[in-house]
Amino acid sequence: MGENCLSGKNNGNKGSGTEAYRELEGYLEQAMAFQTALILLEWDNETLAPEAAGGNTARVQGTLSAAYQKALTEPKAAELIGRCQDEIQKDGDGQAYTEAQRAVVREAAEELRQLSCIPPEEYRAYQELVSESARIWAKARAQGDFEAFAPTLKKIVDYQKKFAGYRARNGQKLYDVMLDTYEKGFGMKELDEFFGILKAELVPFLRKVMESPVRIPDDFLTGNYSEEDQRKLAEYLAEYVGFDFSRGVLAVSAHPFTTALHNRDVRITTHYKEQMDSSLFSVIHEAGHGIYEMGIDDSLTQTLAGQGASMGMHESQSRFFENIIGRSEAFWVPLYGKVKELFPEQLKGVGREMFVKAINRVEPGLIRTEADELTYSLHVLVRYELEKLLIEEDLDVEQLPGLWADKYEAYLGVRPENETEGVLQDIHWAQGSFGYFPSYALGSAFGAQMYFHMRKVLDFDGALESGHIEEIREYLREHIHRFGKLKTSKELLKDMTGEDFDPKYYVKYLKEKYGRLYQIEN
Amino acid sequence: MGENCLSGKNNGNKGSGTEAYRELEGYLEQAMAFQTALILLEWDNETLAPEAAGGNTARVQGTLSAAYQKALTEPKAAELIGRCQDEIQKDGDGQAYTEAQRAVVREAAEELRQLSCIPPEEYRAYQELVSESARIWAKARAQGDFEAFAPTLKKIVDYQKKFAGYRARNGQKLYDVMLDTYEKGFGMKELDEFFGILKAELVPFLRKVMESPVRIPDDFLTGNYSEEDQRKLAEYLAEYVGFDFSRGVLAVSAHPFTTALHNRDVRITTHYKEQMDSSLFSVIHEAGHGIYEMGIDDSLTQTLAGQGASMGMHESQSRFFENIIGRSEAFWVPLYGKVKELFPEQLKGVGREMFVKAINRVEPGLIRTEADELTYSLHVLVRYELEKLLIEEDLDVEQLPGLWADKYEAYLGVRPENETEGVLQDIHWAQGSFGYFPSYALGSAFGAQMYFHMRKVLDFDGALESGHIEEIREYLREHIHRFGKLKTSKELLKDMTGEDFDPKYYVKYLKEKYGRLYQIEN
Repeated sequence: MGENCLSGKNNGNKGSGTEAYRELEGYLEQAMAFQTALILLEWDNETLAPEAAGGNTARVQGTLSAAYQKALTEPKAAELIGRCQDEIQKDGDGQAYTEAQRAVVREAAEELRQLSCIPPEEYRAYQELVSESARIWAKARAQGDFEAFAPTLKKIVDYQKKFAGYRARNGQKLYDVMLDTYEKGFGMKELDEFFGILKAELVPFLRKVMESPVRIPDDFLTGNYSEEDQRKLAEYLAEYVGFDFSRGVLAVSAHPFTTALHNRDVRITTHYKEQMDSSLFSVIHEAGHGIYEMGIDDSLTQTLAGQGASMGMHESQSRFFENIIGRSEAFWVPLYGKVKELFPEQLKGVGREMFVKAINRVEPGLIRTEADELTYSLHVLVRYELEKLLIEEDLDVEQLPGLWADKYEAYLGVRPENETEGVLQDIHWAQGSFGYFPSYALGSAFGAQMYFHMRKVLDFDGALESGHIEEIREYLREHIHRFGKLKTSKELLKDMTGEDFDPKYYVKYLKEKYGRLYQIEN
Repeated sequence: MGENCLSGKNNGNKGSGTEAYRELEGYLEQAMAFQTALILLEWDNETLAPEAAGGNTARVQGTLSAAYQKALTEPKAAELIGRCQDEIQKDGDGQAYTEAQRAVVREAAEELRQLSCIPPEEYRAYQELVSESARIWAKARAQGDFEAFAPTLKKIVDYQKKFAGYRARNGQKLYDVMLDTYEKGFGMKELDEFFGILKAELVPFLRKVMESPVRIPDDFLTGNYSEEDQRKLAEYLAEYVGFDFSRGVLAVSAHPFTTALHNRDVRITTHYKEQMDSSLFSVIHEAGHGIYEMGIDDSLTQTLAGQGASMGMHESQSRFFENIIGRSEAFWVPLYGKVKELFPEQLKGVGREMFVKAINRVEPGLIRTEADELTYSLHVLVRYELEKLLIEEDLDVEQLPGLWADKYEAYLGVRPENETEGVLQDIHWAQGSFGYFPSYALGSAFGAQMYFHMRKVLDFDGALESGHIEEIREYLREHIHRFGKLKTSKELLKDMTGEDFDPKYYVKYLKEKYGRLYQIEN
């Protein structure tokens, strides 16, 4: 696909679309409007809506969800999607359909298939189960009582397997079907290899880090950091890295997240904690997601192809901003003065070098969302291996807590003392999200590969040191963000770096950075 | 209608509805969900959405509006509405339909008629004009240039007259059609009488007030009132008067307003100014609207009958809380200490009596939204007389500025020096809202009539003085709020007070209160 696919300079009929496409657009416009309303309702629920609103608002959400599904699956829409697919197949030279239109039809067909292949009554029963399960999980987690959640989890796993069976094509394995939902082209074959390398390289490397005599103090990161000043720093940093506040909003929620109504209305949240680097990096992380959404081309936003390419590609951008940029020495050269200005007392006697070391301190822990950059993917590894056992080997859910603890001990050297900080920590399984976790690690690896490539084509550290982060951001926009779902994550990576995905860069990046920090000879 | 109409204890088939009604409910459920989404989008636009979101979000709003209209007007829905109407007509003894269901069908039929009677292409052209006109008006207002707005206003008036012609029944006059949209049963006949009394009584009374030797200082209300402390007071007062924060939200917007997703999600806004009583009373005013929406019965919320009875009845509640309660002596007895606590410096030497006098100071001004309680309805009178001339006498819009100034001088004794503080001050006409203004004055009059009634049935001042405002609020909930649109404003007033609407109470209330304050002999 040429670089000009988004230019909008189309010849002849191209751009306005065929008759079938234009008619389909009416249905898709509706579906997108309902989806946008659902996104806003969810944002509002997490950030503002009053406590008692729940039940009544859920009814509205249910009706809008049904309207969304109906807009895409009603016979006329389904017929039009089929006609457009036929036209595209015959449109070899690309006269009738633009790349964007092809992507929209492809996504619509995929969505239609996902929505149509599950018998409605089963789907409804499953939805009820899932809306219940988050509550059951939250209670079980609070009480550290996996037994109370296990029967529900078992039912969810069974439904997920059944649904994956409906969705499987050409004898696909069930866990491959699930993985494919989040990351096209990354099935068990690719992920076994990926996680195999991580395990072989990072587990022994982490052991060396832990045995290193280097001690990094970071006690000054926790303490009397007022929420007001943390908020000021958060807004400053978000804007600095490129989150455009004329097109975006920063709010507070229990768990940080990013959402977008379209490319001119992108919303991120954070939460403020005693440990100041927690919100600081969560804001840069979410700003990375936000910058991706803001960078999606105008011709794609508000269409089914107008979101990030995949979960993993999204995570690659957020983690790129958070870690590769945000936890680098160079990034803080023009910025550390601002931090000291806001917190002169709290950071008294703490120089930039000491600060940057502290925000990179490695400490294997039990909680994924609090993990440092080095150990993060090992948390994901545990989950990948367990999901694979659950789905492909019919592992009894009762065995999860024990296996979880064993794997944490083996890979991270720590063992949970209770289920709250063990198998119950993530909401994902309670929501039926199996196959989602690997994207977190893949994203980090995508980012590292981009990083080594960008160091060849631009002065990466120089840009950061001189406060010209926009050189990096614009490069990402040009090669990743603007394409939305026009390309898969594999294609984006290949087109940008000239190479297929290769996990070696991620390992190299981590071993070089943390080898330096902990003075480990390679 | 008996008091138990909302109890939900129905006999036999009653409650679940006929087959036609149940089928209609599916369409209405959709329509309500789209409407709720539109309400949330509008709230979000006013309070939070980023500046650049406008165009893309407008597209979503357009699609949702169309979906709302389609849900109500598509042939099957229209047919079901007709069938339900027939069934209700035959259902003399009320076996088949509950009161709530009757109200829903009535509102659906009314909405269908409003949406169907205007040719779609004319309506679309009008919508475009109106979406343009707010911008033209805002610019004209900023520049004090009525000439720049006049041609657009003329077009809006012409469309409004044409549409009123389509909507007119049995030879209704055009302005009566418009008035009826906002307040059933209050046409020109009723309003001529109402405003006639106000003019005859209040214009000379205001002159006496202005000639009174009584001087009321209020300079201490303006000054160093921090936004943070004003916010604290606002939240305290809103909760005190009965705005339930577990079912509601208070935010900031350019102009204060109230909106509701349903009876468990009610949202009010304010803005903080140098003059502390501005936000203070705007919050109590909006809390009054909010308490109304929160009080609507569970069986009605999320239906077409689940909003306030009318514009005027809504305004009666907000102005009741703001003025009759909020500007009374008794209200501040248990509360003034809290105000002093928040603003000890700013209110040094200002006792409760002095404070209450200050917040009741009469000062005829040019701006309706800043008017005191006594002069408020005279601002509305000017607009009523001008609207009547525009619609019924074909007044040339060019004559508006001069007539506006003359009427202000005649009724309020002040004359605008420019059009910004004159005819251009309100957005209503730019939005095509003709017939809306009278509701503001009617609401005040409804409230005064309720007040005199309530003084007979409960110890009004005693409840306020002892901090038991809930006795008053619950009475209003019981007799007004919970009914939603089950009754018209006329019916609500009659059922509560035992009398038909009578403007004498409003005049009596104002003359007694301000006669006392300004020591005027009656």
